[in-house]
Amino acid sequence: MLDHLKKYRIILASGSPRRKELLSGLNIPFEVRLLENVSESYPNTLQKGDIPLYIAKEKADAYRPLMQADDLLITADTIVWLEGEVLEKPADKQEAAQMLHRLSGRTHEVYTAVCLTTADRQQTFEVCTQVRFASLSDEEIAYYVTAYAPLDKAGAYGVQEWIGYIGVEEIIGDYYNIMGLPLCRLYQELLKF
Amino acid sequence: MLDHLKKYRIILASGSPRRKELLSGLNIPFEVRLLENVSESYPNTLQKGDIPLYIAKEKADAYRPLMQADDLLITADTIVWLEGEVLEKPADKQEAAQMLHRLSGRTHEVYTAVCLTTADRQQTFEVCTQVRFASLSDEEIAYYVTAYAPLDKAGAYGVQEWIGYIGVEEIIGDYYNIMGLPLCRLYQELLKF
Repeated sequence: MLDHLKKYRIILASGSPRRKELLSGLNIPFEVRLLENVSESYPNTLQKGDIPLYIAKEKADAYRPLMQADDLLITADTIVWLEGEVLEKPADKQEAAQMLHRLSGRTHEVYTAVCLTTADRQQTFEVCTQVRFASLSDEEIAYYVTAYAPLDKAGAYGVQEWIGYIGVEEIIGDYYNIMGLPLCRLYQELLKF
Repeated sequence: MLDHLKKYRIILASGSPRRKELLSGLNIPFEVRLLENVSESYPNTLQKGDIPLYIAKEKADAYRPLMQADDLLITADTIVWLEGEVLEKPADKQEAAQMLHRLSGRTHEVYTAVCLTTADRQQTFEVCTQVRFASLSDEEIAYYVTAYAPLDKAGAYGVQEWIGYIGVEEIIGDYYNIMGLPLCRLYQELLKF
């Protein structure tokens, strides 16, 4: 599948082990590059999916000077959007617990944007998944924040970890989008690329 | 978490490696037992979630003679329900391809039922997740059926495999339920048990 992409060297510019694992699932060869010193700031007028779209393009711009002629660059960004506000990566375990208290018993949206860049072309798209959390007890939140690593995750949770098993009652949309890469849509976009 | 269950020896009576992996995610100790010669037949008047409920109870009945006084037995069954009909495990790769052609471009339901059994108590519940497949090409179906192992899976697909990555556009409900165990609901039921 996706044999028409063989003319490209596919580069995933991301430090996320989850994105690397997910992209591996498409069974296409690719290389991972880490981005350094990327500004993840964005204009505060942006809302919802426009925020990760902006940042995914910033990540592409940061890598562009290193691109070779036959590179197909994949960058992505994910945010959690709760009742009109972004939840980013928590600064510490205390903030992680506060975020989980806010997510508890509510539905939030996860937006992941992807930017596909070649020497002569750039294409972006975003995917939204709704996530409904059960009511989490103080004990459950404390256990997760202590025993797991919420600090590198937008919204302070990994859906593929214990808190996602016990806490996520329902999702509407693409599950893998919550983990950081909307695989079905990405595959469809790559098919057409 | 779930410390009140420490008085039980928890037994998962299932041959499914996916159910074992999922139950491990709840971070409770348990043992796996294989069931032999369980009838998975059911009255043909049953529909939707009543089918796996019936079979999950049959599985519990099959293991019951082996139960010890302090055992908490978990059995489960999963079916795929498409437009009024059950899709079971395919008999061969040809039937697997036929099932995937039927699922392609349509929404189906996955029902998993769970039966919790102790010496003096039995409790069941079922969870439904809707799954919408993108239109799959002949080539994609042939690739999946050849390169993967669809024969041990209801509906001939694993949502956590390549076909799930590229083919599942949207789900509504619990993702882990599609894999064979509704973890969030199971955790809530075990909390109350």
